[in-house]
Amino acid sequence: MCADRINRVTPSPISGFPEWSPAERLVEQQMIDRIRASFERFGFSPIETPAVERNTVLTAKGGEETERQIYSLTGLHPQSGGDTRDYSLHFDLTVPLARYVAQHNNELVFPFRRYQIQKVWRGERPQHGRFREFTQCDIDIVGDGKLSLLADAEIPAVISNVFNSLDIGDFTIRISNRKILTGYLDHLGFAESDAAIILREADKIERQGTDPLLQALDGLENGNSATDDILAIVQTSGSPAEVLDILSTIDSGERFQQGVDELATVFEHAAEFGIAEENVTADIGIIRGLDYYTGTIYETRLDDHPQLGSICSGGRYDDLASYFIRKAMPGVGISIGLTRLFSQLLQAGIVEGGGASVAQVLVTTPDESLLAKAIEIASSLRGADVNTEIFFEQTRLGRQLRYASRKGFKFAVIPLPEDLEREQIKFRDLDAGEEYTVALSDLPGEISRHLS
Amino acid sequence: MCADRINRVTPSPISGFPEWSPAERLVEQQMIDRIRASFERFGFSPIETPAVERNTVLTAKGGEETERQIYSLTGLHPQSGGDTRDYSLHFDLTVPLARYVAQHNNELVFPFRRYQIQKVWRGERPQHGRFREFTQCDIDIVGDGKLSLLADAEIPAVISNVFNSLDIGDFTIRISNRKILTGYLDHLGFAESDAAIILREADKIERQGTDPLLQALDGLENGNSATDDILAIVQTSGSPAEVLDILSTIDSGERFQQGVDELATVFEHAAEFGIAEENVTADIGIIRGLDYYTGTIYETRLDDHPQLGSICSGGRYDDLASYFIRKAMPGVGISIGLTRLFSQLLQAGIVEGGGASVAQVLVTTPDESLLAKAIEIASSLRGADVNTEIFFEQTRLGRQLRYASRKGFKFAVIPLPEDLEREQIKFRDLDAGEEYTVALSDLPGEISRHLS
Repeated sequence: MCADRINRVTPSPISGFPEWSPAERLVEQQMIDRIRASFERFGFSPIETPAVERNTVLTAKGGEETERQIYSLTGLHPQSGGDTRDYSLHFDLTVPLARYVAQHNNELVFPFRRYQIQKVWRGERPQHGRFREFTQCDIDIVGDGKLSLLADAEIPAVISNVFNSLDIGDFTIRISNRKILTGYLDHLGFAESDAAIILREADKIERQGTDPLLQALDGLENGNSATDDILAIVQTSGSPAEVLDILSTIDSGERFQQGVDELATVFEHAAEFGIAEENVTADIGIIRGLDYYTGTIYETRLDDHPQLGSICSGGRYDDLASYFIRKAMPGVGISIGLTRLFSQLLQAGIVEGGGASVAQVLVTTPDESLLAKAIEIASSLRGADVNTEIFFEQTRLGRQLRYASRKGFKFAVIPLPEDLEREQIKFRDLDAGEEYTVALSDLPGEISRHLS
Repeated sequence: MCADRINRVTPSPISGFPEWSPAERLVEQQMIDRIRASFERFGFSPIETPAVERNTVLTAKGGEETERQIYSLTGLHPQSGGDTRDYSLHFDLTVPLARYVAQHNNELVFPFRRYQIQKVWRGERPQHGRFREFTQCDIDIVGDGKLSLLADAEIPAVISNVFNSLDIGDFTIRISNRKILTGYLDHLGFAESDAAIILREADKIERQGTDPLLQALDGLENGNSATDDILAIVQTSGSPAEVLDILSTIDSGERFQQGVDELATVFEHAAEFGIAEENVTADIGIIRGLDYYTGTIYETRLDDHPQLGSICSGGRYDDLASYFIRKAMPGVGISIGLTRLFSQLLQAGIVEGGGASVAQVLVTTPDESLLAKAIEIASSLRGADVNTEIFFEQTRLGRQLRYASRKGFKFAVIPLPEDLEREQIKFRDLDAGEEYTVALSDLPGEISRHLS
């Protein structure tokens, strides 16, 4: 094959489809590993659904905005082998969960606790911080007919475990209950559609101030008379005790009171899970998806980086799978938009890619005659659970050590004839620049000791 | 919302897009974890590429059969937000690797050792054992201009580490070198196109016997005169020493000899990696992709399940990214078709889904007044790295224990007032049916001891 006759394609990035360097991917993967470990610690089991669902499933709930973002599959070639007309890529992990729970209803054990860490796709117009392909990390606890409020109380413990383990700074979990605001507005006499407008505008306070809300109220019947009360309640936040104290002075009907009682129960038990007080606030101003959540709602912020917005959100819903099965399946869950979070952490310098190497040790081969010995040394390190690479190319030691530094190895093992004759071996701590010579048989133990 | 007015969609599986039960997924995930750990043990670093590539990238190399299998993206909605015309789902991880290495050439450190465990999509007509969506686990070592044969020798050590760790039975890695057969046929005077036909038919011997090869030879000029020699060489297999002995008696020109020498070098060093002798054979009959591999080639079989075919294959190629960059990038790699392997292992009963629970312990709540205590006990277990679930619903102990058994927990902790009064706690080993009562403070230690 003559390379010069090839019609070359110059590759370039695709907007909205992120691709990380090996060093960055290593950090992202560590984050996923930690999130997964936290989920498993609380007994959430992994499931995976295909990237593809039937269009009837994805559009069952409707919503034009969502449908506009759906990527359908079609054969590239006119004689495509795959019958593709009816399938599209999933745009979240909630619809697939609902479909999964309905489809496998008889085989699943309830309450069903699952986590799902997968890519999802949304055909959005690309803009800063928006991705068309991204990884979501979701957990849900789904009941068959009923689900204890204790599940709602456990979720903040999981969030707390996740973000303590990710170690990306102090965080605050904001908790509210959907029934508080909807009950309050209902009690004030607002129709459901008007209440939806008020909540949508209240959701903008943090970024745009109270003007949009005030304008909306101005346009609604009875809106102006309630302005002060509404402004007050949507800006009620603080410690659980403070907020519950304030709410206890308000008499706004049955649904409102139910929301307050549920919120009190959630906080009471959340404390039993040992969540640090500084990690939790009550915040009646958080809104979340109006057509989905029906009870407890959660948002999570990094204290030092409020501009990142909520990095972990979710809530309680009455009925997960009503579009797929005639059976009430209440649940509670949260979602971490990992790709967005990770890219923001990178940009803000909160995490950074170190070395690209997943191995801690490079066994160099300065002397070709000692190749077999180098391989044997690497095998002994691997046998001691140390990730180890061997440098195979014949080149001088300086270049091999430069490779080790560029790729971010912690140690370089340097097999030299004069050391091996005395059953000794030299290794260099590449960060510290220190060199050590130890007995050959002690090397795996010595390296393990230095690593831990 | 009145549930009865909902237009329900009854979900059903999509042919070719596998979906496992929670118990099965747990096993699949453990397999992926072990494969990943083996890859990392040898210093392969993770990368991930988008599911989507430009059509120009995916079709750069051509091949109508491949193109027929490509799934393109298109907006489901006429006013789709995503500009999708030019993108398709990747059908393997090799084209994305080539594109990645070309695109990021200046930032990567060579030799570049990467692993990639991702879904790929192929619009094949669904049939037994064929999937349209499946997970591949790939490793490659890619050099900049050159790559030592030691890399070829290390690959069997990685394969060996993977399959020892998967613990799915005895396996044999078959190794050959592409140059041996192509050199041999060239030396016999066959044109390249005729040689390709011979190799294609020789590849069928294991499943269909020698008839297709004999027929093909019958139709080629000089085919009949070479029949015995060709039949002999493509059926040459055995221990490396035996096969190299046989090959050393054959004089078939330069390319043939180069293949034999390379194979000898690979076996010499592979032995230094400590691979067990019974796990490796030389097999001149293995063929692999004709238009890609140029040197060493690998196949792997389970000794007790030859019907599964090769479960891990790969080889050496001269030039990974010739379609994307004008620079020779030789490499060597292997791929495990995980979804196919896993589904076959399930079918053959070699692996089976146990419990669906990723947690080892269920803390039951037989007494509602002890809920706070149950939560505290669960937290202490989680603090000791024991995956723990709490049973939240108020129901009698018998039902809670049945839930624990159905979901496959190893232990159920049973907090009872009379035990807790004496600072004791009861737990049941659900497999053995044994019950233990221990000091409350000893519980995490006791459970950890029983688990290990």
